[in-house]
Amino acid sequence: MRKIVIGVMGPGETATNNDLHNAYELGKLIAQQGWILLTGGRNVGVMEAANQGAKSANGLTLGILPGSQPDGISAAVDIAIFTDIGNARNNINVLSSHVVIACGMGAGTASEIALALKAHKPVILLIDDTNSRNFFQKLSGDNVYFADSALDAIATALKVLSAE
Amino acid sequence: MRKIVIGVMGPGETATNNDLHNAYELGKLIAQQGWILLTGGRNVGVMEAANQGAKSANGLTLGILPGSQPDGISAAVDIAIFTDIGNARNNINVLSSHVVIACGMGAGTASEIALALKAHKPVILLIDDTNSRNFFQKLSGDNVYFADSALDAIATALKVLSAE
Amino acid sequence: MRKIVIGVMGPGETATNNDLHNAYELGKLIAQQGWILLTGGRNVGVMEAANQGAKSANGLTLGILPGSQPDGISAAVDIAIFTDIGNARNNINVLSSHVVIACGMGAGTASEIALALKAHKPVILLIDDTNSRNFFQKLSGDNVYFADSALDAIATALKVLSAE
Amino acid sequence: MRKIVIGVMGPGETATNNDLHNAYELGKLIAQQGWILLTGGRNVGVMEAANQGAKSANGLTLGILPGSQPDGISAAVDIAIFTDIGNARNNINVLSSHVVIACGMGAGTASEIALALKAHKPVILLIDDTNSRNFFQKLSGDNVYFADSALDAIATALKVLSAE
Repeated sequence: MRKIVIGVMGPGETATNNDLHNAYELGKLIAQQGWILLTGGRNVGVMEAANQGAKSANGLTLGILPGSQPDGISAAVDIAIFTDIGNARNNINVLSSHVVIACGMGAGTASEIALALKAHKPVILLIDDTNSRNFFQKLSGDNVYFADSALDAIATALKVLSAE
Repeated sequence: MRKIVIGVMGPGETATNNDLHNAYELGKLIAQQGWILLTGGRNVGVMEAANQGAKSANGLTLGILPGSQPDGISAAVDIAIFTDIGNARNNINVLSSHVVIACGMGAGTASEIALALKAHKPVILLIDDTNSRNFFQKLSGDNVYFADSALDAIATALKVLSAE
Repeated sequence: MRKIVIGVMGPGETATNNDLHNAYELGKLIAQQGWILLTGGRNVGVMEAANQGAKSANGLTLGILPGSQPDGISAAVDIAIFTDIGNARNNINVLSSHVVIACGMGAGTASEIALALKAHKPVILLIDDTNSRNFFQKLSGDNVYFADSALDAIATALKVLSAE
Repeated sequence: MRKIVIGVMGPGETATNNDLHNAYELGKLIAQQGWILLTGGRNVGVMEAANQGAKSANGLTLGILPGSQPDGISAAVDIAIFTDIGNARNNINVLSSHVVIACGMGAGTASEIALALKAHKPVILLIDDTNSRNFFQKLSGDNVYFADSALDAIATALKVLSAE
């Protein structure tokens, strides 16, 4: 009965236009699958774009916030979890996601990918940088998948979920 | 757009029959208001009863788990947040609730009431023990409300929410 | 080989003169026993007074801070742990203390006593309010001790430690 | 007055012999500088070796444990902080260290480096893998330093500390 939750992780202030485009598509596709979108919940970058995409398809959105107050929260978050544990909430993000999709790269995103691999969670990297791909592939070959588009990432998520 | 989340806190293994009855009613009434029920997510005591009550009225249920794995989770939890921060997750429970309702008493519940008052959250005590009522009343007179039944607690929650 | 850590918990901004006096004495006596003093680390109230007391006797002081930055830290803290998990750090305070001494009362202190009892830690209440004493006594009779002075609290801590 | 804390992060069960050698040397050199050694506190891998090294030079050792109980703790830890927040404690490790030294690589260590960079902490990589070096260099050029030996890492830490 428990609902499927897919986490989309990616940069906030430093997201590229490509990251934002991918994040919006991911959010929309996740909602179209009937899955719940989980993000870090802030109103910037990949978090904001993914939530907007999910709401464009009438999805349900879950934001895991670093602080205790609603300021800085994405208006497209339906359910807000106020952790007040700062970046330590990155571990909650990955533990609460059936599949983690990384969309773009930054220090926070890298910590989430690493924590997901530490917890043996499947991680899909929608990242075209070869060095990043190699780094995480080497870190944990078994749970790392690569995707070249949002659609490709969702297809991989479907495969991973059906194999569990 | 953010949905209203009402937290129901109470004992697990040591809940009384009265606590369980109240928790089921609270869950049902919360769902009937269109609010989301937040609990500690475990399959015992007040948590389990409140979630069952909410599902009996087709509500949406959110479980904030102390661990990282689905064992011990209530089958009536729709969305599970795996915090893996143990009883420190009690602070997340109260920070993420618009109103906290305490249903019964125990060490964990007492910590949640105290953390809620520390965070200036409105807390409704559905507890008939005079000593407990006096203790929390004295701790923070402004944010503490008393209720004698689940229906009474929900009426108080409605007043508190409309005053904000 | 692991050193004995004694936690002193109590109000910050709302501490009474009596709380501050007791906290200073507790810090001094803890240091004289060769124990490490653990507090919430802030430069106010019971935390500040206990740390000053411990340093007056050349003790070692450990501060478990709610934030990530040194502002607001007691100058008498030797070793600072920056948790950045807000009041959830109260659980770390009690889990890391061999014995918890509550010196005064407030919402934060009440949460620490409750979390300590939840974790089956011995708690010594240096609190003269009867209602508070009765509340926690009823919550968990086995691990609660009462003290009327700092010296009395330390004598009780010695007994508790030698019985373990 | 606050003491200098240096964090040594590295693999547990998967540490190489080279990692263990470096960790022991790092612990010893940190103690010889009069600094406090901070590790994840477990009795395996880099954590155990660094703590043993520090104790060989009569240093003071601080262990930030993922759990709530002393089982699995290194016998060379003087002061144990029981966080019970699992791998989220990795963020506490880096926030509480003036300088973070990564000794070897794994998913947990990668998360700590990324969280340290996110928090703008200086990080010294005692890692000879070029791909790992490039990945973190690109992630945050300003705060990343490379070292080829424990001695080299300590020399870099001294420079970083004196520049602050």
